[in-house]
Amino acid sequence: MRLCRFEPNRFGVIEGETVADVTELVLGSLPPLVYPVTAGDPVIAALPSLLPKLREAAAKAPRKPLAEVRLLSPVGMPGKIIGAPANYMKHVAEVAADKQINQGVVGKTIDDLGLFLKAGTSVVGPAEGIAIHFPDRRTDHEGELVAIIGKGGKNIAYENALDHVFGYTLGLDMTLRGAEDRSLRKSVDSYAVMGPWMVTADEIADPNDVRLWLDVNGEKRQDSSTSYMIFNTQKLIAYASRFYTLQPGDLIMTGTPEGVAPVVPGDTIALTVPEIGTLSIAVRA
Amino acid sequence: MRLCRFEPNRFGVIEGETVADVTELVLGSLPPLVYPVTAGDPVIAALPSLLPKLREAAAKAPRKPLAEVRLLSPVGMPGKIIGAPANYMKHVAEVAADKQINQGVVGKTIDDLGLFLKAGTSVVGPAEGIAIHFPDRRTDHEGELVAIIGKGGKNIAYENALDHVFGYTLGLDMTLRGAEDRSLRKSVDSYAVMGPWMVTADEIADPNDVRLWLDVNGEKRQDSSTSYMIFNTQKLIAYASRFYTLQPGDLIMTGTPEGVAPVVPGDTIALTVPEIGTLSIAVRA
Repeated sequence: MRLCRFEPNRFGVIEGETVADVTELVLGSLPPLVYPVTAGDPVIAALPSLLPKLREAAAKAPRKPLAEVRLLSPVGMPGKIIGAPANYMKHVAEVAADKQINQGVVGKTIDDLGLFLKAGTSVVGPAEGIAIHFPDRRTDHEGELVAIIGKGGKNIAYENALDHVFGYTLGLDMTLRGAEDRSLRKSVDSYAVMGPWMVTADEIADPNDVRLWLDVNGEKRQDSSTSYMIFNTQKLIAYASRFYTLQPGDLIMTGTPEGVAPVVPGDTIALTVPEIGTLSIAVRA
Repeated sequence: MRLCRFEPNRFGVIEGETVADVTELVLGSLPPLVYPVTAGDPVIAALPSLLPKLREAAAKAPRKPLAEVRLLSPVGMPGKIIGAPANYMKHVAEVAADKQINQGVVGKTIDDLGLFLKAGTSVVGPAEGIAIHFPDRRTDHEGELVAIIGKGGKNIAYENALDHVFGYTLGLDMTLRGAEDRSLRKSVDSYAVMGPWMVTADEIADPNDVRLWLDVNGEKRQDSSTSYMIFNTQKLIAYASRFYTLQPGDLIMTGTPEGVAPVVPGDTIALTVPEIGTLSIAVRA
């Protein structure tokens, strides 16, 4: 199943080129939100048991053309946005060859670097666009497959890790180049793009074997497969959960392959994984 | 005014050695929480206009001895936990002298490194304790003054930055030593200690001129003053807000002075700023 969020705070089931509006069922099924809301994204926590009802509701729900809705991040309240640095060897090589990216540190992989965090305030969906906040500096696209945690946990075993995935979406780990800490440069407002929607885990036979490619203004820049990841999806989940508790709605961005490059206002970025679709977003000043 | 959170999800006004329970007023004043809750901590957002009523309510509220309540993080839903690396020159010097800390990178200050993030799942209050998750590796205490953002904003001017502070608390930026990304090593569950309570901004004449010291098992390890910060409180706020939107409840940990050192299960850490009080917390396996 393909599920989206769209303006203003609506939930939809995507069927072909239409969106069935299931907002009432989704938000009406949530337990009352009680302060402090710290157990993860309540919608993602509710969705696994809601899926059968969603199918029924979608059949009767009012519909809109998909092209007419303004898509938001499919996860509305991600508690953690977790990044996987240097998780493709060819990306490690291109970083080593580019001083603007490596800032004097070369040859490190995810084995050395572990994971990083992006700020919740940096999340946007396709309709919101990417704003370049430091026009004098270089901002790069990094296209990635994103695993959405459905069932939280600590010290999750590699063997069971994919059972903790609710579904997948696409992500752009937009990155300001420079010497500052990774978690700052990658947390600029609008620098965590999620979308265009999420697909439930059953729609991807193997998250470690999907092709992904990224175009800027119709020109191909990145084209690889998640089969080249150094830490695959289940290793990322198992590894992350040794450090911190994972919660429903946590987003694991699985890292970017080679081909990262700058974008400027006016550009349109399009990231595709055939099993999911295409995330298309405009870059503005 | 001194405000605390205590188990189970209660709010208190501290007067002398007692806590007046003002939970009903605080939680009752919140607008209904609507998904997605992404505009910051709703309690911290509500508190500035609630302070006069809190004073009245505290006078009539049921009281408990302060020694009998189990203190939680005074901010229950911090959206961002922002750290200031290498913000004291004497700490920069001790890092340069210790390979376990510097991992081959020496002489960098906050001017180079900017800021980093800690995960929301790492936050605990004094009653919850610190759990050592990697017993074979070194975990250090880093005692800090923490500014609690009350009024959010983007591109906040240095001159107005302190107007955005609701109050202050104390923080331990617990840190696993190693080569991984800072935002991972500092985000281990229970590695962001906040407390013992918050004081409103009016109780600290100048956040850039308070003494802070830290004892482990009664032995002094850190003893400095925020007057030695390289980026002072208003610069940290102004700088942070150039990258990302600040929101009510965001926590700005202002960095640690020299004297960082390992802790082990069984230790008790006590961090003091006279204008706030003492944050005391136990370390366990």
